[in-house]
Amino acid sequence: MWKSTVDRATRLFDDLSEEDAAEPVAPGRNRVVYLLGHLTAVHDRMIPLLGLGERVHPEMDASFVSNPDRAIGDLPPLADLKSRWENVNGHLLVLMQQDVSPSWWAQRHTSVSEADFQINPTRNRLSILLNRTNHLSYHLGQIVLAPKRPSGSADRK
Amino acid sequence: MWKSTVDRATRLFDDLSEEDAAEPVAPGRNRVVYLLGHLTAVHDRMIPLLGLGERVHPEMDASFVSNPDRAIGDLPPLADLKSRWENVNGHLLVLMQQDVSPSWWAQRHTSVSEADFQINPTRNRLSILLNRTNHLSYHLGQIVLAPKRPSGSADRK
Repeated sequence: MWKSTVDRATRLFDDLSEEDAAEPVAPGRNRVVYLLGHLTAVHDRMIPLLGLGERVHPEMDASFVSNPDRAIGDLPPLADLKSRWENVNGHLLVLMQQDVSPSWWAQRHTSVSEADFQINPTRNRLSILLNRTNHLSYHLGQIVLAPKRPSGSADRK
Repeated sequence: MWKSTVDRATRLFDDLSEEDAAEPVAPGRNRVVYLLGHLTAVHDRMIPLLGLGERVHPEMDASFVSNPDRAIGDLPPLADLKSRWENVNGHLLVLMQQDVSPSWWAQRHTSVSEADFQINPTRNRLSILLNRTNHLSYHLGQIVLAPKRPSGSADRK
């Protein structure tokens, strides 16, 4: 489910023009470009959360996690955001596939203490994966609602 | 994840006025009332799909699954749809909690043949639950974008 949902998002993001990315998903709500950066940063944060190593783009949090859309004026170019999306998800998938044993997934994630994990052992790595898959689905449902130029427009890339 | 996502949806649906429910999630897209019926019918279909018994509302498919929004003129009253949402999800949860053993979830769902299941054993009951949780998250992301009357309006119920 994680892989197929990420793949679906990748197809949507690949197809975005600058104009598409600048559209809000609804009047006054997040722009598609913000959600692209937001999802990239949230997936990047999964790397240390799952105990799999260091993040690739910790600098993205200010623009895409700690602050809402439009709070930070200068966002990275769309092409950079698209390649970060690919890189972060590719790297994360390789790391997650190094060890897919049920017992690994049942271990605590790094933002819960050992004591709290004893109280609630469902606060494990698998819960992070399930939660983030649903978080991605939630925003995908929004991204498909954003106005798009008709497909086949000359400068679509 | 299933339970918390259903609960989140229930809170959104409980709060809907007739006017809120009649709003499309984006111009020309599904109305909130359609998504309420759609999600109810899709969850109802999980009962036989998981081998848990008969559906509660098979008659809903024509209006909410087989046809897009606005294809069928007369939808049930909003109050009925809200109570069907509660009933179907309540019933389904009771049935799913009768047997939560890992081996039960790893068995094939009823829309895959025994032969196809041998080829791909991930087409199991758990995959239905994961898929439908993400399906719900996807539409929840859309429902929160629909225009709403300001909270505190006199006739909200």
